[in-house]
Amino acid sequence: MTISSPRSAILLMHCPDAKGLVAAVTEFIARNNGNILALEQHVDPQVNQFFMRVEWDLATFAIPDDKIGDYFDTLIARRNGMTFRLHFSEERLRMAVFVSKPSHCLYDILGRVQSGEWQADVPLVVSNHPDHAAIASSFGVPFHHYPITKENRAAQERAQIALCREHNIDLVVLARYMIIVGTPFIEAFPERMINIHHAFLPAFIGAKPYHRAYERGVKLIGATAHYVTADLDEGPIIEQEVNRVSHLDSIEELTRKGFDVEKITLARAIRRHLERKTLVFANRVIVFN
Amino acid sequence: MTISSPRSAILLMHCPDAKGLVAAVTEFIARNNGNILALEQHVDPQVNQFFMRVEWDLATFAIPDDKIGDYFDTLIARRNGMTFRLHFSEERLRMAVFVSKPSHCLYDILGRVQSGEWQADVPLVVSNHPDHAAIASSFGVPFHHYPITKENRAAQERAQIALCREHNIDLVVLARYMIIVGTPFIEAFPERMINIHHAFLPAFIGAKPYHRAYERGVKLIGATAHYVTADLDEGPIIEQEVNRVSHLDSIEELTRKGFDVEKITLARAIRRHLERKTLVFANRVIVFN
Amino acid sequence: MTISSPRSAILLMHCPDAKGLVAAVTEFIARNNGNILALEQHVDPQVNQFFMRVEWDLATFAIPDDKIGDYFDTLIARRNGMTFRLHFSEERLRMAVFVSKPSHCLYDILGRVQSGEWQADVPLVVSNHPDHAAIASSFGVPFHHYPITKENRAAQERAQIALCREHNIDLVVLARYMIIVGTPFIEAFPERMINIHHAFLPAFIGAKPYHRAYERGVKLIGATAHYVTADLDEGPIIEQEVNRVSHLDSIEELTRKGFDVEKITLARAIRRHLERKTLVFANRVIVFN
Amino acid sequence: MTISSPRSAILLMHCPDAKGLVAAVTEFIARNNGNILALEQHVDPQVNQFFMRVEWDLATFAIPDDKIGDYFDTLIARRNGMTFRLHFSEERLRMAVFVSKPSHCLYDILGRVQSGEWQADVPLVVSNHPDHAAIASSFGVPFHHYPITKENRAAQERAQIALCREHNIDLVVLARYMIIVGTPFIEAFPERMINIHHAFLPAFIGAKPYHRAYERGVKLIGATAHYVTADLDEGPIIEQEVNRVSHLDSIEELTRKGFDVEKITLARAIRRHLERKTLVFANRVIVFN
Repeated sequence: MTISSPRSAILLMHCPDAKGLVAAVTEFIARNNGNILALEQHVDPQVNQFFMRVEWDLATFAIPDDKIGDYFDTLIARRNGMTFRLHFSEERLRMAVFVSKPSHCLYDILGRVQSGEWQADVPLVVSNHPDHAAIASSFGVPFHHYPITKENRAAQERAQIALCREHNIDLVVLARYMIIVGTPFIEAFPERMINIHHAFLPAFIGAKPYHRAYERGVKLIGATAHYVTADLDEGPIIEQEVNRVSHLDSIEELTRKGFDVEKITLARAIRRHLERKTLVFANRVIVFN
Repeated sequence: MTISSPRSAILLMHCPDAKGLVAAVTEFIARNNGNILALEQHVDPQVNQFFMRVEWDLATFAIPDDKIGDYFDTLIARRNGMTFRLHFSEERLRMAVFVSKPSHCLYDILGRVQSGEWQADVPLVVSNHPDHAAIASSFGVPFHHYPITKENRAAQERAQIALCREHNIDLVVLARYMIIVGTPFIEAFPERMINIHHAFLPAFIGAKPYHRAYERGVKLIGATAHYVTADLDEGPIIEQEVNRVSHLDSIEELTRKGFDVEKITLARAIRRHLERKTLVFANRVIVFN
Repeated sequence: MTISSPRSAILLMHCPDAKGLVAAVTEFIARNNGNILALEQHVDPQVNQFFMRVEWDLATFAIPDDKIGDYFDTLIARRNGMTFRLHFSEERLRMAVFVSKPSHCLYDILGRVQSGEWQADVPLVVSNHPDHAAIASSFGVPFHHYPITKENRAAQERAQIALCREHNIDLVVLARYMIIVGTPFIEAFPERMINIHHAFLPAFIGAKPYHRAYERGVKLIGATAHYVTADLDEGPIIEQEVNRVSHLDSIEELTRKGFDVEKITLARAIRRHLERKTLVFANRVIVFN
Repeated sequence: MTISSPRSAILLMHCPDAKGLVAAVTEFIARNNGNILALEQHVDPQVNQFFMRVEWDLATFAIPDDKIGDYFDTLIARRNGMTFRLHFSEERLRMAVFVSKPSHCLYDILGRVQSGEWQADVPLVVSNHPDHAAIASSFGVPFHHYPITKENRAAQERAQIALCREHNIDLVVLARYMIIVGTPFIEAFPERMINIHHAFLPAFIGAKPYHRAYERGVKLIGATAHYVTADLDEGPIIEQEVNRVSHLDSIEELTRKGFDVEKITLARAIRRHLERKTLVFANRVIVFN
């Protein structure tokens, strides 16, 4: 999905399983002279759902961009009780990065964006601490400091929501943002807010996971990137990774080793979201390849 | 693909990329009242080839089993310059296991087959040493001892080919068989002979890879399962895995740690083959999920 | 620690940290003409404890085997408030394997023992089901069937304890034994009973972890080998491993992939125990290299 | 080894194995009232060498810093034919980062240094391209552009050596620097020049490893951090890591996935060097824990 690639359309869909679904969708594309670039499909018998992602070249496609959704809805989706999303390959998402004290994910995200690794922009960095203003500044990104107290929390969050809306933010990334985000903010960005939790969920939900990993004497530490829902650390998981540790590792050392796992895990999850390869159903994430 | 699953047909195919291929294949299935259980498709732009694996329920399929291949060939394959293979889910492959001194892969394979993990039978174990007759016997599998010398090699191999044919062997597994297999044997089982090499190919091609891994001071050791071709250790790779080692590991310890990597790697590759999820093109293996 | 190695003594010890501990222990060995083969030491500042494992060649050691413990106790341990264990390299542990329906760990353990990979014997296999009598028999190991009901449970467990004692069992391995073991049995084998839990603890404590892993949509599944304590799945962790899974994996597939992780994890933990490389302190296991 | 830790001394040593070596060293420390913080020792029977790293608290140590080396040399090292290095925990290394076009390792290193993760400074970034001047500048690091041609190569390298000496560089990091460094430069920084090779050595030595990985159809890609020697890609390996890939990955995708493996692998190797945990012997690196 680099810029030099052909313009393509991406459809993500799911519906109750039935015969002929793949044929119907692919015939729709072929009949209108589209060439399929990638297609992944599977049926989950546990929930009797059909899932599919299909991407096709728009160069010779007969239907204009702004009509594809309508036509697909009428000809395919409604007849099959299908939920679908349509994207175009040239879309460039706008990400807001929220961060507290640990800066490793912030550095990693800004470096990837600046080097052009991702097809995305970061128009703003938000923090409850003033510390990382210089980092944001050195990457040329405006920094917004919202100190949070018990008293001002709801008000500050309303301001943050407004800020994100004003900047047309598509994706909110909680890149080790250590404030629990309220339901209004979460509901303003459904399946568009990604958090990195510094543990292998569902182990060590909540605070101080590395302390608890030390106490439990685990032999691997992990990180989990998930879409944020109203239930803390219970949102659908996009990506997880682990790293080996040993009795030699102090809590500080677990934390430091964990930083590398966190930043890689979060980056992979963000990429999958940017590539339009994630689809949430029943609190699970289908991550297409 | 357990026995309690519905009877299904599996098609593996590849051809030069073109528009409408997925639609053509899935429409063929849908029109004849088949329900797709799994479909994976991709295009490799480096070689401009379209690859697909599709599996569908035969319960209500209109075309009788023995006609599916013909119909597909006529209606789809020939028109698109397509190479394809057709399988049925109830097929139960017959594997010959070849082994020399190290017994870990032999134990692992026989245990999996006896416990019913795989939809396969092992009607014979072949070795150039007499040592493992008791293992084969304890699993109720006939053991064939073919001592190999420079002089008798070609003749013994002819006898082995004959033995495999007599027992209708579908897949020859070289489970740490330390004799280089001759071209006639390889050509008798094209893409149906799997070897486990005790290194992360293409590192340490040839003999004594753990000795060389020790000398090179690598920090990970690996294993590679591949289809055997006439070029030693150059066949298309089905699966690879690694394990961490350190300066503390002697050659003996590298070897012992490697045993676990080898048996898991080989088992995964065999399973993929049994599930009809491998397709070879240009010395690379497409491994469907 | 193969049989061809020199006879060696192994000391495992811990005590409050103090100056001169390594010097005192190594000087004890050197003064009596022992050559150190391996030494690992570390201090955990979180608990202010010194931990060490040292192994030395007995060929020229001046103190007879049966006096080493006494001398070390008098000259080193008592003066430093040290807890220690002494082992000799030629010791060959006797393991009892307890198993229910899944047989993969049983096969793996019996294969390793029979092939001589481990310096251990398995004089008995115990199960609450009769199914695996033939497996034990094919490996020449006596099989003991103890059906468990609510009513007979305590009595059956007393019989199992008696059986293990009668056979001088050193290590009880719960190799996917799906019965919760009672406190009297656990206390009869302190730090000598290893369980494999089919999840990445502390995630998915208790029953049906693969079902819950499916529902939670995790991207890695894991296994945990731990010493059994009276708190279910809370015992000190010896080894953990994970494997990648995806939305494509049904509960059955998660279970099957998990089998490989379980057997490798359990085997590594057993090996570390056999090599006298584990030391438990504060519910954490020091696993020496 | 954070700044708040006690001041400590670190000794790295090796010599032919003999009795009493650990006792002699630890007794030297204990007699002079030092408290050991960490000790790792092992004997490699393949080369009959004793290796040890010991770190002790200097707070109460009787010998002044500038005499420790002399005393140790006289009392311990000479008598045992021992090679040793002495370091102090407060040392802060000066790293020069050399980079060509790919910027991921550069970003990663500068972010770690700026955030204080490492006890090191980067006083200069060197490149054969002008592209990354802005990155260095945004991190406040002087950037030196040395265009390289066949003709000016030797002269430019002499200038680079002079630059590194002038800035008292302790460690040269080739962070995806795509120019082959000449022997004079390598010999000026023996065991003090680290390269990241974008393959799992000894696989894919030399140019374009991701292209060759694609062609060979490997299922894992890797990266190798090693000390640079006069033999290209043959220097002693400090760290290796891999990541899973599939037939779906184009060369571009392999490259992109490889970037993450490279930066993590290089960072781990640098950290081990900074912590004085590496010791080279016979082209192998002992990496202490």
